[in-house]
Amino acid sequence: MFITFEGIDFSGKSTQAKQLYNYLKRKKKKVIFVREPGGTKLSEKIRELLLDKKNDNMTNVSEFLLFSASRNQLTNEIIIPYLKKKYIVICDRYYDSSTAYQGYGGKIELNSLSLVNKIASSGLIPDRTFLLDISYKDTLKRKTKTGTEDRIEKRKSDYYNKVAKGYLTIAKQNRKRFRILDAMQPKEEIFIKILKDLNI
Amino acid sequence: MFITFEGIDFSGKSTQAKQLYNYLKRKKKKVIFVREPGGTKLSEKIRELLLDKKNDNMTNVSEFLLFSASRNQLTNEIIIPYLKKKYIVICDRYYDSSTAYQGYGGKIELNSLSLVNKIASSGLIPDRTFLLDISYKDTLKRKTKTGTEDRIEKRKSDYYNKVAKGYLTIAKQNRKRFRILDAMQPKEEIFIKILKDLNI
Repeated sequence: MFITFEGIDFSGKSTQAKQLYNYLKRKKKKVIFVREPGGTKLSEKIRELLLDKKNDNMTNVSEFLLFSASRNQLTNEIIIPYLKKKYIVICDRYYDSSTAYQGYGGKIELNSLSLVNKIASSGLIPDRTFLLDISYKDTLKRKTKTGTEDRIEKRKSDYYNKVAKGYLTIAKQNRKRFRILDAMQPKEEIFIKILKDLNI
Repeated sequence: MFITFEGIDFSGKSTQAKQLYNYLKRKKKKVIFVREPGGTKLSEKIRELLLDKKNDNMTNVSEFLLFSASRNQLTNEIIIPYLKKKYIVICDRYYDSSTAYQGYGGKIELNSLSLVNKIASSGLIPDRTFLLDISYKDTLKRKTKTGTEDRIEKRKSDYYNKVAKGYLTIAKQNRKRFRILDAMQPKEEIFIKILKDLNI
């Protein structure tokens, strides 16, 4: 089973993804946790390029293709082999992030983007995707608590509003796979909903 | 005018590209020379990842997307702005390299590859492409003279034979844009043919 978590930065998706991983680990399930971009030696190097504030003139397309390159390596080196060994694979972000960020946010034409997503993911589709839905405005309250921002986090409200709306559009177009969770609820309640949905 | 040079490694394309650049420079033409992958700060970092022998398990798709990311940055940061300023832009490798190496050599499906090429090049098509045509077998004699090989050069004859044949197929499909040059001729003769063709 391949489970992905999606949402804008500070939506709480990483917290939920890790909590699910720890829960399943305690229950002695075969489970691994990976994050995007990253998760392999090469993908982590690509991650550095993507988040480095010095690369401030990176084109949208270049950004998208770097995410996609990192994704293909992670998919083929880690995700697919573990799925074959009957592991539950939990991934913090997958190609829906590209559709939301580089497509709805960065304005890359959605049909082309969708084709690159298919190539980059080697045709692998998550079995379940949890969207932690939150407005950009609401994430700002959480943001002030943490430190510096990376290259992508530095973008402004107009961008993040588009990304958040984009996520909802994607979720509505993929109702079977997606579960939309209200990210403003208490963490514990969100987690219970995830467990109930997965029925594990 | 946007001029690209293509061919397998050790075909002599870089020598011809640089010679053309120096020739035009001496003639006081507005001209720049760039190479792929590379040519911008970000693209050079991507180049390092692509050529690093330690990344020996890189997937074909990841390789292709990294080349494409580097290409989009170079195209938008350097090539298009200089073309707008009426410069002659000479580029050592462009998207035909991806079609030949990752498509015909690495077996990425050609229609998908072609679409990614279009996105990566922001729709820019070279005005003239010189293919330095040589068999892999003939490059081996040249190879022994130089030092160590990078990650891509380490590949074997079967791969390079496909790439060399792929280049000829691409050239035949794009007759207007391509000029096929016999890379076994003396350097000087090849260069004269290039100058005659360009009529500059």
